[in-house]
Amino acid sequence: MSAARPQLKLGAFLYPTGHHVAAWRHPEAQADAGSNIAHYIELAQLAEAAKFDLIFMADGVGTRGTDIEALSRTAVRYVAQFEPITLLSALAAVTKHIGFVATASTSYNEPYHIARKFASLDHISGGRAGWNLVTSSSEHEAHNFGRDEHYAHAERYERAEEFADVVRGLWDTWEEDAFLRDKESGIYFDPDKQHILNHKGKFFKVRGPLNVARAPQGQPVLVQAGSSEPGKELAARTAEVVFTAHQTIEDARGFYKDLKTRLAKYGRGREELKIMPGIFPVVGRTQAEAEAKFQEIQDLIHPVVGLSMLNGMTGGVDLSKYPLDGPIPDLPETNASKSRQKLLLDLARRENLTIRELYLRIAGARGHWQVVGTPSRIADEMEHWFTTGAADGFNVMPPHLPVGLRDFVELVLPELRRRGLFRTEYQGRTLRENLGLSTPRHPARVQTAAE
Amino acid sequence: MSAARPQLKLGAFLYPTGHHVAAWRHPEAQADAGSNIAHYIELAQLAEAAKFDLIFMADGVGTRGTDIEALSRTAVRYVAQFEPITLLSALAAVTKHIGFVATASTSYNEPYHIARKFASLDHISGGRAGWNLVTSSSEHEAHNFGRDEHYAHAERYERAEEFADVVRGLWDTWEEDAFLRDKESGIYFDPDKQHILNHKGKFFKVRGPLNVARAPQGQPVLVQAGSSEPGKELAARTAEVVFTAHQTIEDARGFYKDLKTRLAKYGRGREELKIMPGIFPVVGRTQAEAEAKFQEIQDLIHPVVGLSMLNGMTGGVDLSKYPLDGPIPDLPETNASKSRQKLLLDLARRENLTIRELYLRIAGARGHWQVVGTPSRIADEMEHWFTTGAADGFNVMPPHLPVGLRDFVELVLPELRRRGLFRTEYQGRTLRENLGLSTPRHPARVQTAAE
Repeated sequence: MSAARPQLKLGAFLYPTGHHVAAWRHPEAQADAGSNIAHYIELAQLAEAAKFDLIFMADGVGTRGTDIEALSRTAVRYVAQFEPITLLSALAAVTKHIGFVATASTSYNEPYHIARKFASLDHISGGRAGWNLVTSSSEHEAHNFGRDEHYAHAERYERAEEFADVVRGLWDTWEEDAFLRDKESGIYFDPDKQHILNHKGKFFKVRGPLNVARAPQGQPVLVQAGSSEPGKELAARTAEVVFTAHQTIEDARGFYKDLKTRLAKYGRGREELKIMPGIFPVVGRTQAEAEAKFQEIQDLIHPVVGLSMLNGMTGGVDLSKYPLDGPIPDLPETNASKSRQKLLLDLARRENLTIRELYLRIAGARGHWQVVGTPSRIADEMEHWFTTGAADGFNVMPPHLPVGLRDFVELVLPELRRRGLFRTEYQGRTLRENLGLSTPRHPARVQTAAE
Repeated sequence: MSAARPQLKLGAFLYPTGHHVAAWRHPEAQADAGSNIAHYIELAQLAEAAKFDLIFMADGVGTRGTDIEALSRTAVRYVAQFEPITLLSALAAVTKHIGFVATASTSYNEPYHIARKFASLDHISGGRAGWNLVTSSSEHEAHNFGRDEHYAHAERYERAEEFADVVRGLWDTWEEDAFLRDKESGIYFDPDKQHILNHKGKFFKVRGPLNVARAPQGQPVLVQAGSSEPGKELAARTAEVVFTAHQTIEDARGFYKDLKTRLAKYGRGREELKIMPGIFPVVGRTQAEAEAKFQEIQDLIHPVVGLSMLNGMTGGVDLSKYPLDGPIPDLPETNASKSRQKLLLDLARRENLTIRELYLRIAGARGHWQVVGTPSRIADEMEHWFTTGAADGFNVMPPHLPVGLRDFVELVLPELRRRGLFRTEYQGRTLRENLGLSTPRHPARVQTAAE
């Protein structure tokens, strides 16, 4: 019976020391994770043994933030860690089944490099690569690439649209069977199966062809995370997996329905895009144990870090001069992020939170959906989201590593399997196949077939 | 006695199917090498077992050439193969000692990306990364990056100079012991040991810091190959290994002396830069066997490919309309590459070569030093170059792979070891240590030490 149930897609989202803002301070966390390859090999092999669909890596081409007091107390914000494409290439060599999704920004890259590196990773891994397309919104990244400010939102997305088209175009410059490698005749490739791109657009001029053969997956899987209006349109047109952040099932369902509905406009079916919200699970054998675990790591948030996150999330509200265990003071409105600011301050007043309580409320999971509970409670929540139109799967964000991932694998996965919701073996050879995505054929082949 | 002799440095220069222009057609060649990861893992492990210092990867960000008739018969010219940084990252995960040098162009990259990827590879490999800095001189690469023509020579080198400085500056944005990771106090890094770069130059504006910790080697090894005047100056100022192409020992000695002499001007010692010419060895148990092997692969050069190489090497002389086995006709001089054209045509006339004989003379090793002979003959030549001021070591360019590398390892290396010229075990932990290069300390530390 249970084998017939639709299957959850699961990603292991590996932040170096874990997703909790104070993860690195946890006694069991690998504090040097950002430069410890053995740590990542252990995690990749653990996730593969557990049959996760993929490992997901976020990225920033620069440290986010310049508040040195807070930065010097944190391992998140891309202070210092492996670069994702090199790291995932290394992990591909020591695994056989799990997929690898690396984030790369369209704002500070060239499409030829991105097309090439992901195609290369797809060959290295035998069809297990995915590209998480992001647009950079941090001025700290701009400063590393000759710019004083980051691109404005509209321009960023216009560039991303064209960037994605160029990358996909380059991935289509060789047909599947272009390389004959016929030693007898001396023909290495069939010239008719090479397609020059000759792209000339607003942002890019790229001739091609790509100097990597067509990817084993046809094209690496295209992943996105944008939730703005242009972000959702880009995703509906091009993305195959969308990673999202929702704190409530209502939000998640609204987003899910919205995005799935948009697919038709681009001639795409609902199954061609998988939506995987983040989940930050704190697992305990009992509810009390889970809560104690959560409290233990919450207590590790240094006030300087908590206040700095509050400052960031409210668009610049500085509460560092007020007593930490006192109420939120009356504040003048700032221009930036008014709605987020109001949301947070309203929350604090409604629940009578102190400054410390407020930052503890938001800092831990950094805005992601946080579930603190027993394996069956967490499985209940995941099943509920999955079966009621909020998610096709989840990107699992362990609070600290490696233990947080091991807890999820040892405690939550057996419960999901008992319910018939998650595989016990990989069915596909490629990331696409495991995700239930079709393998795109070369456009010239599709045409031929249609003639 | 022999243990006391200076030791050769050896690189394994891995071109997908091998360095001979017709390598892929050889019965024993791995024709799909460019997308066969198992092939590269086999080669890397073979080279490591043989104690090579490093694996060297050339690169081009685009296919070189548009003559589709010739291109479709060749596996060289970057038609389709793994991207080097992803490939070497994968190989780092399945090896422990051997170094990895990947080529990346300063013309079509951003210094932040390059600094980051090589620092990341250095962490992944535990101190085994090197960057071969090149400037792109092919318009085919320019066309993939929004340009109609490649940068002019002077501008290319001016950009490369600044690019190298930015990369090395970014590599110095963290001191060795910046990351305290003190769980008790909550201090992740010492702010005083982070150094903002704030570079503002003609080509680049880069704030930094790099978001990767200081490399295990201090800095990844800097490799270059330029032989023009600005190329030699850049090498004398910044390179630690120089890969060169010389066909005669006289040329090699002249280059060696010239470059080593330039070091003093930059306050560098002769030992701080290793010069490694390429060697294209065809090994046989007897001279006759070696020559037969060479002839076998020479015979695989398709006339279309041979004529196309002749065309490229003479700057556009088209001999395709003349009888292949007839003499070189009288030709009008072209503007491009006059000296190279004259050199080749003079050679042909002096030795009475047919068109086919001429392209066979130059096409095989693509301009590199070619030695066809027994292990002792090849070891004699290498020893002679090494002991008479022509080389600190060699970049070994097997004719076809994997067999060409295996031949060198099984036949030539024992002979070099018998003479005490090459290690039997790795002595160092890092590429630098194996090459006999010192590990650069952070400038702030050097200053402190001097105070």
